[in-house]
Amino acid sequence: MTALKGACIIGQSGGPSAVINSSTYGAIAAALKSEHITRVLGAHHGIKGVLDEELIDLGKENPEELALLPFTPSCALGSCRYKLVDPTVDDADYKRILEIFRKYDVRYFFYNGGNDSMDTCNKISKYFMSVGYECRVMGIPKTIDNDLAGTDHCPGYGSAAKYIATMTMEIYKDARVYNTNMITVLEFMGRNAGWLTAASALSAYAGAGPDLIYLPELTFDINKFCDDVEAVYSKSGKCIIAVSEGIADESGKYISEYSESLSHGRDSFGHIQMGGLAPYLANFLKRRLQVPKVRGIELSLTQRCAAHCASKTDIDEAYLAGSSAVKHALAEETDKMVGFKRSYENGKYVCSIELSDLAAVANIEKKVPLNWITKDGTGLTRDFINYALPLIQGEPDTPRENGLPRFARLSGKLIK
Amino acid sequence: MTALKGACIIGQSGGPSAVINSSTYGAIAAALKSEHITRVLGAHHGIKGVLDEELIDLGKENPEELALLPFTPSCALGSCRYKLVDPTVDDADYKRILEIFRKYDVRYFFYNGGNDSMDTCNKISKYFMSVGYECRVMGIPKTIDNDLAGTDHCPGYGSAAKYIATMTMEIYKDARVYNTNMITVLEFMGRNAGWLTAASALSAYAGAGPDLIYLPELTFDINKFCDDVEAVYSKSGKCIIAVSEGIADESGKYISEYSESLSHGRDSFGHIQMGGLAPYLANFLKRRLQVPKVRGIELSLTQRCAAHCASKTDIDEAYLAGSSAVKHALAEETDKMVGFKRSYENGKYVCSIELSDLAAVANIEKKVPLNWITKDGTGLTRDFINYALPLIQGEPDTPRENGLPRFARLSGKLIK
Repeated sequence: MTALKGACIIGQSGGPSAVINSSTYGAIAAALKSEHITRVLGAHHGIKGVLDEELIDLGKENPEELALLPFTPSCALGSCRYKLVDPTVDDADYKRILEIFRKYDVRYFFYNGGNDSMDTCNKISKYFMSVGYECRVMGIPKTIDNDLAGTDHCPGYGSAAKYIATMTMEIYKDARVYNTNMITVLEFMGRNAGWLTAASALSAYAGAGPDLIYLPELTFDINKFCDDVEAVYSKSGKCIIAVSEGIADESGKYISEYSESLSHGRDSFGHIQMGGLAPYLANFLKRRLQVPKVRGIELSLTQRCAAHCASKTDIDEAYLAGSSAVKHALAEETDKMVGFKRSYENGKYVCSIELSDLAAVANIEKKVPLNWITKDGTGLTRDFINYALPLIQGEPDTPRENGLPRFARLSGKLIK
Repeated sequence: MTALKGACIIGQSGGPSAVINSSTYGAIAAALKSEHITRVLGAHHGIKGVLDEELIDLGKENPEELALLPFTPSCALGSCRYKLVDPTVDDADYKRILEIFRKYDVRYFFYNGGNDSMDTCNKISKYFMSVGYECRVMGIPKTIDNDLAGTDHCPGYGSAAKYIATMTMEIYKDARVYNTNMITVLEFMGRNAGWLTAASALSAYAGAGPDLIYLPELTFDINKFCDDVEAVYSKSGKCIIAVSEGIADESGKYISEYSESLSHGRDSFGHIQMGGLAPYLANFLKRRLQVPKVRGIELSLTQRCAAHCASKTDIDEAYLAGSSAVKHALAEETDKMVGFKRSYENGKYVCSIELSDLAAVANIEKKVPLNWITKDGTGLTRDFINYALPLIQGEPDTPRENGLPRFARLSGKLIK
């Protein structure tokens, strides 16, 4: 077996996570070690960096700074939300990408992202095949949303889940500090899949979590919601509720849209930008149930960047995903996404790598299985807890300076 | 010297913090060890627990659970926001407190809280003196707001500052992930004193912090604010702004009141309940400066409960404050608040204890010195950094179970 020789491009795309840089570092480290990969290039802001010929020579970055990437949140190479159109409609972007790949003799392409990014990766892979350009194209999964197909779970989810569960436990403690009646509504990210909101069930499992949890997998009925809350509140004078930003009513209308002023516009993929749901529901309950004190808390983007509360398991697995992408590409695999397979050895959780066709994972959203939601629709079963617990284990030994995290400082210098 | 013999009552009051339980545990542990203190009682929900005769026999709690208190956020004994009226106006509460103290032969009273709590502590102390009831009354400071007089800094501030600085660094990284223009407004707690918002300057010192910081110590001029932001934004297309919830205009009106819908009512002390400022300012800038993407993030009460990002220095000092209150009371001190004195030995920060009269600290708010604010009014000087850095050092070895913090589980059983 003689591996293809040439440069590689590594890109990051979509919303960041606490550990996407760990995956990217896994890929960079493996690529720098390979004798077949002649040059390791980073695309500045994902595929836009390729289109704009904004490339970083990662072999010239300080190795000590690169080694800090697993503890550095966000996307060190820069990210983008850029949708490639179908090449049969307009192939200008594809031609440009090919031009750049040819110019730098790029024979390996690693793209680190979520569903939309796997779509980009898949389209580029198929285009290269259609024009006969030999290049190994591998997708590296990333999303706190945990909604990618072809993998047991996604790098980034474990850390977000750990932060959500930890913070929810702390908020639970805080919300019980006074002997006055109070309702707290916590809003978590998750447009169509409720994985992040479900993570709050881990805090309930630890004895300090929400009384009621609402995922977007089920239709949200505000009257049933009100009855659910009243049943809890009337007993203890307290109620903590976890809701996903994406809960919607029977007509498919997002609850966050009920209050017009809460609409935050749409992103470049046409997705509605969420937010403002927690205060809306808190005020709704205040009026409806005559609650003296309500609080709506939105963890907002802290969910995707709280590296200080990352899961060591997640950081390690993210690295494994990145390094495995390179390893398999060197072994002549292409057009695949690296995914995780779960097994248990003597009852102990083990995570290994399996590959899926890019076409089979692009644009597919994996939701929380309905049979993991309790019958009353307000909680998660033990199956979910068993699924999620292994993913949040361990705390990283984060390098620090002056009591604060020491993030990687890359030069980010673009090749002229 | 023969110390007074009798029971003690320990109470927690006001808004919680990540480390108030460490102070309370310091007091409990010292009291349980003393041969002069016959019984260690916890007041359930602060002074209300005394008034309602809701007391917990802390000597009967599991010592292993008590030992988890330094890692447990919120108030394990329960807190209250209860204002004692002047006894010359109505002494009913005072008579009731005295009745309970006599009934349980309470000769030591330790009250753990902020400005309002020191007022309560002071009033009780003076009342006991006026009626000749011998009781050692000691205040133990606590407030993330860091606005108490009589102490270099307050237990709780270091942990809140560490969380704010860490989270701000992570949000900074996140806010730079795309190459699109964006403004981020971060809102921190602090009604009249800007200590918490100032803590975001620590992240700027670490190279990943706000461009502009606005404290309530200075009058907020929204037009100057707009000019400040524009100057930064026009250069880089990005701007991160930290504002204190309590910023107010020349007339004293809170900026958060500019949008009527953002007013959240008043608490039982008559303080206006803050919130909603960040989205208000973000939307204001979006319109005024034509910014494509703005984000308003309110860390909300995560600032006061994020024990997972506590400062070990803060936890240890909080414990010291609690244990010192007992030690000094046993040494016949009374009517005092325990405070911290800062010194440097061979350039190394050292924290020791000093006592202040309760009357001298009750109801006084200590603000950020104006000469620690940069001349342009949008940043903090090196003096502030030097002040705050020692307080955020070290990470606690938090006990964990299943990857999540293991908080103290007290029985909280009330004495019949």
